[in-house]
Amino acid sequence: MLQFEAKPERPDPVYAHKLQELIGGAYGEMTVTMQYLFQGWNCRIEGKYKDLIMDTATEEIGHVEMLATMVARLLEGAPATATAEAVKDPVMAAVIGGMDPQQAIVAGGGALPADSNGYPWNGKFIVASGNLLADFRANAAAEAQGRLQTARLYNMTDDPGVKEMLKFNLARDTVHQKQWLRAIEELEADGLETDVAPSALFDEENQEHNHTIWHLSDGPDGNKGGWSTGEDRLDYLMDPKPLGGPGTAPKPDPALYGTYSATQDTVGVVKGKAQEVKNKLS
Amino acid sequence: MLQFEAKPERPDPVYAHKLQELIGGAYGEMTVTMQYLFQGWNCRIEGKYKDLIMDTATEEIGHVEMLATMVARLLEGAPATATAEAVKDPVMAAVIGGMDPQQAIVAGGGALPADSNGYPWNGKFIVASGNLLADFRANAAAEAQGRLQTARLYNMTDDPGVKEMLKFNLARDTVHQKQWLRAIEELEADGLETDVAPSALFDEENQEHNHTIWHLSDGPDGNKGGWSTGEDRLDYLMDPKPLGGPGTAPKPDPALYGTYSATQDTVGVVKGKAQEVKNKLS
Amino acid sequence: MLQFEAKPERPDPVYAHKLQELIGGAYGEMTVTMQYLFQGWNCRIEGKYKDLIMDTATEEIGHVEMLATMVARLLEGAPATATAEAVKDPVMAAVIGGMDPQQAIVAGGGALPADSNGYPWNGKFIVASGNLLADFRANAAAEAQGRLQTARLYNMTDDPGVKEMLKFNLARDTVHQKQWLRAIEELEADGLETDVAPSALFDEENQEHNHTIWHLSDGPDGNKGGWSTGEDRLDYLMDPKPLGGPGTAPKPDPALYGTYSATQDTVGVVKGKAQEVKNKLS
Amino acid sequence: MLQFEAKPERPDPVYAHKLQELIGGAYGEMTVTMQYLFQGWNCRIEGKYKDLIMDTATEEIGHVEMLATMVARLLEGAPATATAEAVKDPVMAAVIGGMDPQQAIVAGGGALPADSNGYPWNGKFIVASGNLLADFRANAAAEAQGRLQTARLYNMTDDPGVKEMLKFNLARDTVHQKQWLRAIEELEADGLETDVAPSALFDEENQEHNHTIWHLSDGPDGNKGGWSTGEDRLDYLMDPKPLGGPGTAPKPDPALYGTYSATQDTVGVVKGKAQEVKNKLS
Amino acid sequence: MLQFEAKPERPDPVYAHKLQELIGGAYGEMTVTMQYLFQGWNCRIEGKYKDLIMDTATEEIGHVEMLATMVARLLEGAPATATAEAVKDPVMAAVIGGMDPQQAIVAGGGALPADSNGYPWNGKFIVASGNLLADFRANAAAEAQGRLQTARLYNMTDDPGVKEMLKFNLARDTVHQKQWLRAIEELEADGLETDVAPSALFDEENQEHNHTIWHLSDGPDGNKGGWSTGEDRLDYLMDPKPLGGPGTAPKPDPALYGTYSATQDTVGVVKGKAQEVKNKLS
Amino acid sequence: MLQFEAKPERPDPVYAHKLQELIGGAYGEMTVTMQYLFQGWNCRIEGKYKDLIMDTATEEIGHVEMLATMVARLLEGAPATATAEAVKDPVMAAVIGGMDPQQAIVAGGGALPADSNGYPWNGKFIVASGNLLADFRANAAAEAQGRLQTARLYNMTDDPGVKEMLKFNLARDTVHQKQWLRAIEELEADGLETDVAPSALFDEENQEHNHTIWHLSDGPDGNKGGWSTGEDRLDYLMDPKPLGGPGTAPKPDPALYGTYSATQDTVGVVKGKAQEVKNKLS
Repeated sequence: MLQFEAKPERPDPVYAHKLQELIGGAYGEMTVTMQYLFQGWNCRIEGKYKDLIMDTATEEIGHVEMLATMVARLLEGAPATATAEAVKDPVMAAVIGGMDPQQAIVAGGGALPADSNGYPWNGKFIVASGNLLADFRANAAAEAQGRLQTARLYNMTDDPGVKEMLKFNLARDTVHQKQWLRAIEELEADGLETDVAPSALFDEENQEHNHTIWHLSDGPDGNKGGWSTGEDRLDYLMDPKPLGGPGTAPKPDPALYGTYSATQDTVGVVKGKAQEVKNKLS
Repeated sequence: MLQFEAKPERPDPVYAHKLQELIGGAYGEMTVTMQYLFQGWNCRIEGKYKDLIMDTATEEIGHVEMLATMVARLLEGAPATATAEAVKDPVMAAVIGGMDPQQAIVAGGGALPADSNGYPWNGKFIVASGNLLADFRANAAAEAQGRLQTARLYNMTDDPGVKEMLKFNLARDTVHQKQWLRAIEELEADGLETDVAPSALFDEENQEHNHTIWHLSDGPDGNKGGWSTGEDRLDYLMDPKPLGGPGTAPKPDPALYGTYSATQDTVGVVKGKAQEVKNKLS
Repeated sequence: MLQFEAKPERPDPVYAHKLQELIGGAYGEMTVTMQYLFQGWNCRIEGKYKDLIMDTATEEIGHVEMLATMVARLLEGAPATATAEAVKDPVMAAVIGGMDPQQAIVAGGGALPADSNGYPWNGKFIVASGNLLADFRANAAAEAQGRLQTARLYNMTDDPGVKEMLKFNLARDTVHQKQWLRAIEELEADGLETDVAPSALFDEENQEHNHTIWHLSDGPDGNKGGWSTGEDRLDYLMDPKPLGGPGTAPKPDPALYGTYSATQDTVGVVKGKAQEVKNKLS
Repeated sequence: MLQFEAKPERPDPVYAHKLQELIGGAYGEMTVTMQYLFQGWNCRIEGKYKDLIMDTATEEIGHVEMLATMVARLLEGAPATATAEAVKDPVMAAVIGGMDPQQAIVAGGGALPADSNGYPWNGKFIVASGNLLADFRANAAAEAQGRLQTARLYNMTDDPGVKEMLKFNLARDTVHQKQWLRAIEELEADGLETDVAPSALFDEENQEHNHTIWHLSDGPDGNKGGWSTGEDRLDYLMDPKPLGGPGTAPKPDPALYGTYSATQDTVGVVKGKAQEVKNKLS
Repeated sequence: MLQFEAKPERPDPVYAHKLQELIGGAYGEMTVTMQYLFQGWNCRIEGKYKDLIMDTATEEIGHVEMLATMVARLLEGAPATATAEAVKDPVMAAVIGGMDPQQAIVAGGGALPADSNGYPWNGKFIVASGNLLADFRANAAAEAQGRLQTARLYNMTDDPGVKEMLKFNLARDTVHQKQWLRAIEELEADGLETDVAPSALFDEENQEHNHTIWHLSDGPDGNKGGWSTGEDRLDYLMDPKPLGGPGTAPKPDPALYGTYSATQDTVGVVKGKAQEVKNKLS
Repeated sequence: MLQFEAKPERPDPVYAHKLQELIGGAYGEMTVTMQYLFQGWNCRIEGKYKDLIMDTATEEIGHVEMLATMVARLLEGAPATATAEAVKDPVMAAVIGGMDPQQAIVAGGGALPADSNGYPWNGKFIVASGNLLADFRANAAAEAQGRLQTARLYNMTDDPGVKEMLKFNLARDTVHQKQWLRAIEELEADGLETDVAPSALFDEENQEHNHTIWHLSDGPDGNKGGWSTGEDRLDYLMDPKPLGGPGTAPKPDPALYGTYSATQDTVGVVKGKAQEVKNKLS
């Protein structure tokens, strides 16, 4: 049984094409499904966080199913096999021009694990780092992009059945955004994380450069925001200078044939003890 | 001139391999560079937000340069051309086993636009939606993963020169996390966005399902978190039921050769006006 | 000379777009060409099998050529350079909407090594494992998807020249399916393989779980098929229980910053001798 | 709860690297999970076939979980943060050389949705065509490659805990191979499909070329196999000739700047009615 | 400020789709930007060459910006949210059919880091080998394809604003082609490289086969060109014979389950000292 | 029969890993094979050019075969199935660390259609534009990178059998570089192309900006090269100014939810007739 009904009032193959974005796009339902599954399996702390992750993961599989079903139904009776003759009808022509050819040729009138440009979903779309603060931020971001894309697609149809399903999806994206934002607060309340991820190496990091924004573009207003005018503000360096020297690459290994002039002064960076290691290595 | 110095004390080709993650990985410096550039170009509101984005974009190009320079220097004198004979020395053998073959064969002892497993950076790693709330969330998430990976790499070296540079990188990732979080507050303060992205369609979305978490895994503790116990809590549905019917795919178009039994009852979903459209289309 | 004629009666740029699936799609002719070449080169047994593989590989190169030629001819006179003005003609508009922009911009009116959504052919589309049973199964499967897609495309044109070529392609896909299925029988007849790949480790594998199907979905009819009712049937476990314990991930390495509570009981899985190894490693 | 136990006796980070193949490789568990899910959702015939597909899909999710858990446990105490100093110990050095850097840097000691070379799982690894014969062939092929790779990995460890789990996986791959092969027989018994996919267009396809194998390589033994000597044999054309003319590409559109000589005879293929269409288009 | 103005006279969403090729295509502006940046960072010789590379790299970032701006402006007022009803207008229908769905759904009416088929830009599009001759050749080739694609796109619009910008782009591509060709001459004049890359191993390479072209296709005219008739000509071997023996793969490792017959003669290639190594390894 | 012998004196699995770059890397033999095949099929001018392309294409297939054979032989007896115990031997450990896991697990001791980091060959590695000048430039560039990588690999082995084969490959890469450079001269001699691709639109392109190099980096020496000091020199603009206005993105479509302030002045670029079109579209 579907989590929510997925019945279009009528077929719309062009819209079926666009809906692929919510299935296999970078912020589609396959992404949140797999992101939450891998985060749950990689979670190092048993209990409420892991269970929340796995609850949501399970729901997202159901969303892929709803969308795949919707796509198949939107494609019912699609002019998959229309020939050049059919194109002479303008409406038909428009429909054919806007269809995803692979939904017919590859999937036989069904959904693909791909986005609205036919690019396949891939594992780089997700993250599961083991650090819950970093990952819940990614989750809140993913649900935001997901709701944004759903909202845009909501405005691209006037089919009541499709809109009904998308209203459900919008609602779920609202809840999930809130849930991850609150889970971030909970991590802090539990003393597990702070407001910067990871909650470590604050003393080791460069203390001079962890509170300044560098003005590097030609835009004059970066320092007008609350981030640099409010309380506990970040300083805006209006005329920052490079702190390092030239980014000179070292003399190349002759056996690698980098273009190099023998008369050029060597600009190697290694010295002392490093030279010993180099000698050993070369 | 480099934004900050990038001088290792000695070569370390295995570490040069790992550093690729910070250059061309999903959350490496190429990602934040390109993400901020496209967000800036796609920004629909002139002034402080766009300028902050472009300031940061420009800085990130400098980070790619620092890392590329560091990689070239860590590879100086690397046993790029060692033959099988060399492998008999255990240390050398270990070094060779841990090197990235393409840093030698393809880049001649330099950095690659790829991650630590040799997978090339690609445009799907970034997002620039035009909605600043959704995008600043993605930015804060990217900087969190970036600082996390930098912190892990910080613990994988004891070269003072490398650590010095990474301390700078950690500091910048701290600032950038804070900056995007405050910019999110600023969006709300300016009345441009709320806490859910996009700030629209709240009345249209399904009101019954925009405040409930569904208990769908076998973990019992999802409802123990502040998200479902605190004030303004999200409800936890402990025994949710599917709201939709079966996800039956429609009868296939014969010309697409989906396996189908002629004696099977038709399970089409279209009816009424939809049928008309279908008739026209088929 | 082409293996078979590839002359369309008239140009049809929209169809040229769709034909890309048979060139560079996951089951297109580039796939079978490269799959058979790598299988031939990786074949560990000289003679009839290897020669059959190489005969077929050679033919498939010719199929890519036929399709590439057909695409170039279907694109002759295509409105590649039509401007916005031209779109006002509905038929022209439809044609433009359905064209592959890269066939004009990148290939100058020719074929691309990509599928019908512009996704490039890649090496992951093929397999050449060295085990002929496993690989011939993959070959029979590839030819089945290939013939299926060709059949769908056959129904999408009424150009006699195109249909003539596709009739040839359909015929070749029929032969190749039969050939690989018979070669599988031959492997068994020759005593080289059995009906399960690889033909080994049958005694070592778990004897309790190598003949049962687990009923895990909410569909009630999985056990109605011949596979669980016929002779030598596979048992259907109607109410299977998990055999393992919880999938708890171990305590994280502090230097990797996984979120973890110090007060949490350690849920490590290593013990005894493993602890020694761990001590050495950490 | 895991479907089967996943407890290694001791950590082995190099093996954790290799196991990635079974998670995110082209024939890993993510592939069969997603392939069966999309086939189920795309199934056009309710009942035993769809239920069998969904039963198996559900099981495969559990296999990904088992493997992800195993990887996290094999990585416990892995020298993720070992510095150059550590490399001086040969065993440690070997371990570091053979590790997947992203399991530490990106996943914090967990599994990745990628293969053993760090290439991410993607949607092109699966097929769900709506034609059950074509798809069940692909399933039997996938399970064959899966069992083959599992068998190879079985020989690469002597950890009793790992071997115990792999024995279970081998057994499941045996069942699943048998199950899909029998489901193929069932399709034929039910009169839904024949032995060639799709079961159509046999009369339309080229009758002269649907029963011949072309001898095109320099291997002399292709015609020695049962496929061309047995009953109902396929004919071996020992000296086949091309049936088509030259694969000449047509005269290029001047606006696309294909290199072309004005003095060259036009080698266009269009004529008659086609010319009219061309005139309209250009 | 933009390097050059990017103001279309009117929106044209179909053309915005095509322009993506110049942004994120294999030979688009992202490619030359990143190619030149990595070449500059990887340059092993300070001074004029490196500075020329970095000058050009910086300019190319500006080209991406111009194109991204142009795309956003071409999309202004695009029927991103048109519903099925709108498709009944033929012109509108054509426009919708030819749009890039992701420019609306993902980028909110802006440019994507992808090509005109929605395939994302990736790091494999560039090369930075450290050898300037090899890389300047790649640069001249990239600028040639870039100008070619720009010229094709120039013929696909009649918007004066777009044409004005493309005239600038054409001019820059002309300069850049000339510049890299002259830089190649300069490398030779400076005695750094010769006419074959790399300028080494000429004495070691096979002297018999470094000046012959093998006639291997069925085309009869390969030897009619100046390359084999002019002064200092390359010899055309009209009837070349294979120089090697059969490409027999060795006997497989039994633990890898390659199909193999025990009765088959072993066709191993190892012998003598190699056998010792093999013994040690196996 | 192989084009040239491919017999290593002894197995070397680490080197087999590296050799993958020459098979499936961006500039490996699969690239030149496919690039030349598609260029030949896309060639619009019959005769010497097309025949030269096809002659070379055919040879390159043979190079893939040679390399695939070499890889299989280098892997003979490789410790594919060595367990953790084996790693205690330092040499063995190093070997295992440096192997490609997929050559064993996926290919059973054979070659993969992938590069030395396991990234699969893909169709974006090639170009076949129909313009011979642009494509021959790409060919000369590909052969240059190919010879460079071969030369680097030549220095990474001391196996006489491997070196013998690579000497042949080096020689062929020398010939092919020369051949494409001369074919470029021939195109000019035949009056088919000039020195800039494509040989068109020179009068239309911006005449003010087609002979200047812009000084945009902080490097001071770009104008010291022959390109800006020699005869027929390109001018170096030492202090160039942007020619365009701000790259302001237009006011967003409200239905796409780009962040926008209602009080902000509209910065639209459309006007006059364009507004009419916009009205129609929106």
